[in-house]
Amino acid sequence: MPEQWAGHSLNMKNQKKTFHYLGRPGSYSFLAAMKYINNVNNLAGSDSFYRIFSNLKNKKHDFGIIPIENSLTGSITQNYDLLMKSDLYLVGELFLKIKHHLLVKRKDNINLMNLKYCYSHPEAIKQCDRFFREHKNIKPVFAKDTASAAKMLMEKKGGNCCAIANSYTATENNLQILNIEVQDDSDNFTRFAVIGNKIRKDGNKATIIFKVEHKPGSLLRTLVPYAEMGFNLTKIESRPIIGRPWEYIFIIDFIINNTASLNKLLSKMRMTTSYLKLLGRYEEGVSYDA
Amino acid sequence: MPEQWAGHSLNMKNQKKTFHYLGRPGSYSFLAAMKYINNVNNLAGSDSFYRIFSNLKNKKHDFGIIPIENSLTGSITQNYDLLMKSDLYLVGELFLKIKHHLLVKRKDNINLMNLKYCYSHPEAIKQCDRFFREHKNIKPVFAKDTASAAKMLMEKKGGNCCAIANSYTATENNLQILNIEVQDDSDNFTRFAVIGNKIRKDGNKATIIFKVEHKPGSLLRTLVPYAEMGFNLTKIESRPIIGRPWEYIFIIDFIINNTASLNKLLSKMRMTTSYLKLLGRYEEGVSYDA
Repeated sequence: MPEQWAGHSLNMKNQKKTFHYLGRPGSYSFLAAMKYINNVNNLAGSDSFYRIFSNLKNKKHDFGIIPIENSLTGSITQNYDLLMKSDLYLVGELFLKIKHHLLVKRKDNINLMNLKYCYSHPEAIKQCDRFFREHKNIKPVFAKDTASAAKMLMEKKGGNCCAIANSYTATENNLQILNIEVQDDSDNFTRFAVIGNKIRKDGNKATIIFKVEHKPGSLLRTLVPYAEMGFNLTKIESRPIIGRPWEYIFIIDFIINNTASLNKLLSKMRMTTSYLKLLGRYEEGVSYDA
Repeated sequence: MPEQWAGHSLNMKNQKKTFHYLGRPGSYSFLAAMKYINNVNNLAGSDSFYRIFSNLKNKKHDFGIIPIENSLTGSITQNYDLLMKSDLYLVGELFLKIKHHLLVKRKDNINLMNLKYCYSHPEAIKQCDRFFREHKNIKPVFAKDTASAAKMLMEKKGGNCCAIANSYTATENNLQILNIEVQDDSDNFTRFAVIGNKIRKDGNKATIIFKVEHKPGSLLRTLVPYAEMGFNLTKIESRPIIGRPWEYIFIIDFIINNTASLNKLLSKMRMTTSYLKLLGRYEEGVSYDA
């Protein structure tokens, strides 16, 4: 999404709106926020998703950026739960292609065979399983996040350490990329949601959650209006409601044509669901490289 | 599931079948395997999901136990991907209620106010976010898994350290539970799948994956036979196929009546899908406390 669009659609023109993200400069949430608003000055890091939601609710910040889905690890249902319980809305989305590189200090004669320890976040280490299988001389060491891993590498003396992190972190810490893209799967995308206090009236995509009775055919009846009205689903997911064995919540993303047809769809769905909430309307997101 | 059932249904009676799980004794996968087969002697730990799959394929082990879904973090799509690419099948399931306790060494006068460091797995630390918000004197320190965290606590001198792990680990390491269940959400369940080389012909539940064309109504057409034949869905999830923008895979779990109706359903579904695979048939799982 070009800067102009984001600025326009979120009414940010000439205003100092702040974006709240998880982690610190160099984290993937930070990179997602950077790509989305193209301006580093309005960003504020947080140490938990919980705090992002509470700071938005208390109007400490205007928007939040949270990961909601990863191509390898699936939906981040914790964030859907926080969204459902809050009065916040989805107002935007973007996809970030995750690229993990092997970083070393800038000096001569560093080669893979001499490396012994590799700092990184546990999730990044898991996503680079093949690399560690093929280089048994390198032992993973956990860091709080990939940005902290790079910092740990910088502070370590000797030449037998490396880190796995993104290229932004490499540049910021003046580290050298020894091997590019050491992750197992080159198709590693994270979908980020932009969240805010007000629902948007525009945007070609929407997310809704609903409940139906748990009996054969009830989901089917709810999906009929989509087929009739020509809406394309881009995601459907059921979630059990723990503690209530036969109750399920469904999350659906879909492409919409116009506001009138969205309203018509919602009123049709109200007849077949026991609970229905529009989580937000937003412009379909584009993909960026991390 | 009682021992007799597991032994019977998986043809394990009087046989030395081995179960491959992730981690070491005390890991949640280990506890799941223990609950399922009720016998610690036939268990073998692994350091990655990848190796569990390859060892099963090479007949090094008979069955594997892998987490496929968590009530807070959603589907573990990595394991669904490994299943789809392999010739292995789902042959059982169980649900494990995750309980994280605060463990300290057995000695007098340990209280929360004097603690400074807490060892645990990053995922467990994330799930105990409220505890760390309310006890700012305690700093989390990452461990490879919760069993390793308990070991780190045992080896540490001084009385200002604690660990977050399950009660099995507490007992094994002779540690004291200072606070029970320090996780944010008491409804924290992980669903485990038992996988094997042969598809089962019995069991009242099944999992299938399929692809349909990405156009309005195609999913609906595929779900019609479920409603007509009275099958109850217990899970539906779409997954984008990365690199192929408009293609999706759907994963469906459902309760079945008998083999004849399952075969009829599959042949009906073959008419509306471009790809269809029965991932396995198994007995609906029960829940255990970790």
